[in-house]
Amino acid sequence: MLPDIVLQTDFGLTTGFVASMYGVIRMVDQSLDVFDLNHEIRPFDMRQGSFLLRDTIPYWKGGTVFVSVVDPGVGTARRGCVAKLNNGSFVVTPDNGSLTAILDWVVAVREIDESVNRLKGSDKANSFHGRDVFAYTAARLASGIINFEGVGPEYPVNEIVTFETTHGTVAPGRAEGEIAGCTKHFGGVGTNIDVDEFEKTGIVYGDMTHVTIVKNGETLFDRDVLYHKSFGFVPEGEPILYNGSTTPTIALSLNKRSFAEKFLPHIFDTGENFGDYKITIVKK
Amino acid sequence: MLPDIVLQTDFGLTTGFVASMYGVIRMVDQSLDVFDLNHEIRPFDMRQGSFLLRDTIPYWKGGTVFVSVVDPGVGTARRGCVAKLNNGSFVVTPDNGSLTAILDWVVAVREIDESVNRLKGSDKANSFHGRDVFAYTAARLASGIINFEGVGPEYPVNEIVTFETTHGTVAPGRAEGEIAGCTKHFGGVGTNIDVDEFEKTGIVYGDMTHVTIVKNGETLFDRDVLYHKSFGFVPEGEPILYNGSTTPTIALSLNKRSFAEKFLPHIFDTGENFGDYKITIVKK
Amino acid sequence: MLPDIVLQTDFGLTTGFVASMYGVIRMVDQSLDVFDLNHEIRPFDMRQGSFLLRDTIPYWKGGTVFVSVVDPGVGTARRGCVAKLNNGSFVVTPDNGSLTAILDWVVAVREIDESVNRLKGSDKANSFHGRDVFAYTAARLASGIINFEGVGPEYPVNEIVTFETTHGTVAPGRAEGEIAGCTKHFGGVGTNIDVDEFEKTGIVYGDMTHVTIVKNGETLFDRDVLYHKSFGFVPEGEPILYNGSTTPTIALSLNKRSFAEKFLPHIFDTGENFGDYKITIVKK
Repeated sequence: MLPDIVLQTDFGLTTGFVASMYGVIRMVDQSLDVFDLNHEIRPFDMRQGSFLLRDTIPYWKGGTVFVSVVDPGVGTARRGCVAKLNNGSFVVTPDNGSLTAILDWVVAVREIDESVNRLKGSDKANSFHGRDVFAYTAARLASGIINFEGVGPEYPVNEIVTFETTHGTVAPGRAEGEIAGCTKHFGGVGTNIDVDEFEKTGIVYGDMTHVTIVKNGETLFDRDVLYHKSFGFVPEGEPILYNGSTTPTIALSLNKRSFAEKFLPHIFDTGENFGDYKITIVKK
Repeated sequence: MLPDIVLQTDFGLTTGFVASMYGVIRMVDQSLDVFDLNHEIRPFDMRQGSFLLRDTIPYWKGGTVFVSVVDPGVGTARRGCVAKLNNGSFVVTPDNGSLTAILDWVVAVREIDESVNRLKGSDKANSFHGRDVFAYTAARLASGIINFEGVGPEYPVNEIVTFETTHGTVAPGRAEGEIAGCTKHFGGVGTNIDVDEFEKTGIVYGDMTHVTIVKNGETLFDRDVLYHKSFGFVPEGEPILYNGSTTPTIALSLNKRSFAEKFLPHIFDTGENFGDYKITIVKK
Repeated sequence: MLPDIVLQTDFGLTTGFVASMYGVIRMVDQSLDVFDLNHEIRPFDMRQGSFLLRDTIPYWKGGTVFVSVVDPGVGTARRGCVAKLNNGSFVVTPDNGSLTAILDWVVAVREIDESVNRLKGSDKANSFHGRDVFAYTAARLASGIINFEGVGPEYPVNEIVTFETTHGTVAPGRAEGEIAGCTKHFGGVGTNIDVDEFEKTGIVYGDMTHVTIVKNGETLFDRDVLYHKSFGFVPEGEPILYNGSTTPTIALSLNKRSFAEKFLPHIFDTGENFGDYKITIVKK
């Protein structure tokens, strides 16, 4: 079987954009299977797109071809590229920071040569490279019409565009970091404190901690929170600290309620920066 | 061909959760086809999940493997299970009430033995059984790696966890019940009055009825409503009583407008209970 | 391989409606592949559905079977039909205006004979033709169980129901038209001014223009706007005029911001008519 293609965009699902990408892929080779990672990335948020690649790629077979299109610079000089990962998978994406969170896995990167790898007749419109360049190139690669060399010229991995990332710090009985992500649907909060690092605090399942969240000097949350395996270990509506399930970082939720809705009402506002929410966890 | 896998969760579509489930399934066997039932179930609403299984399963070939993950108790002692249905289909789900509405179809149930049927290396995180246990087990079952016996130990069907269900009552010229469901998109309302039972009222297509909806003593709707085959039999914006299309129960809508938006403005609020909305239908 | 089936509805993704359509298709022939065009069409908006067919069909292989169900008249006398297009593709839809924007491509049309092409046992419910008639007929057609003649009796293409469409007008240095579409997700605006026509204005990439948007005498937007290839040619938050990517018409957006949110706050309100927003573009 041919490798699967997995699509991620910030296009939303209220247009025909994603369906056109499917169509182009099936036009290149109708035996290609296409899956969705997520099309509801916050518009233009490469950071979220990058984190989702990191959280999802490990659960797909090596050799899978991912397409990630969060592309505010479409039609400008930013490179379109294909990155090859150490498990044999590929990521087809604008080189605009989207590869940051998976940079350690990239073994080689090539710039897409649009003189070859662009849908014929698509040159009048300049703003839909997701369909005309990225989906099209992914399909050609997955179907074997081109190999990795056929993408275009290689360039050094250390030229890949990245955004700054941060990691929380730990000490015995204490961890400090910031919010790294928050899902609107459940309202749980992810941090930038790695689970492996957190072990060094000596805090173990069943321990009570005290957690504070402060944004620009304002305390938004300041309560005792149980650290345990999962939501169900506290009563409905109560907070719980646990190991994130998709990302190996420490997470904070309410059992059966939205933490964000209750304590962080503005976190989804436009222009809001997750990193401004500082979190401190202290063992009691 | 292998059986199809059909996924239902309350994860929403703004994360990579569902995509990780797809990936695990395709990693187990890349020839498995995966479909979505619904990922926008109200967070933690097993009741809605259960009704959707009932409404959808009959339209899929016998032998299909459904995965239903609405799982507020993840990581606690609740059983993970696979139920075998009388048409040969399977439902892989936490045993937490999700099987209630389809209990009549269940011929056998087995607890998932996680020592065998759990994704290798997934034990650090305890909150994503949807991916690590349920999707993984469904894929093993659908691909034939395990048979039903390979799921784990059988237990009695009458030990399956259920929630309470209600049915409306009918008499000649009169039916009483409550709201059983409401879709945000169209704003139509489903009741717990069965279509078969409703026939006993003697009310037939073209009859005018009087419908009232009362919640905690407050009358929210009190008007004449035509009972007919479909929306188009009344003018735009007017109410219509008809036989539900997915569920064989009586339904109430406005033609081309949202009934819920106009008459039941709080029905989607958190903590709101559909069953508190009592409905009475009287023949005129 | 059998032709792909591509589904479009206004059902939203919070119910099991779409999943039942998948199930019926796979029950007819499990080797059929099914894709989504869009299920978030504004309820009852045939116009949007029709435009999306026009924008998406060209990116799918000839022979593909599209199903488009925006069907406020379900259960009434409106015809269900299958239109055959000049590239060999088919559109299965209620004949209620949904074919308007692709009428030039229709070479023949047949009314669905429900005595043959309706899911057995589906006659108690009259409001879900999407599943019982349209998905079912599409699957029978795509799988070869019936050919085009097997759909039902042919009728003249000029009897197809259409809604009125408008096109902007151009003159040297000037174009006038109206808003034809607006996506909630990005907030960009499409017009009814064709890209080919717009060339006659003599306005070329890099030219500065002055754009006004007026609704019922009220000026909502009145500013200089650069016409260029894509968003990235103006600073963040600034307006840009460009060639639409899915539709070959002139489009207007902000770079990395929502034009609609900033300048057209009521455009998504119920009952709002895009055509009431008049747009004028003048070369500076």
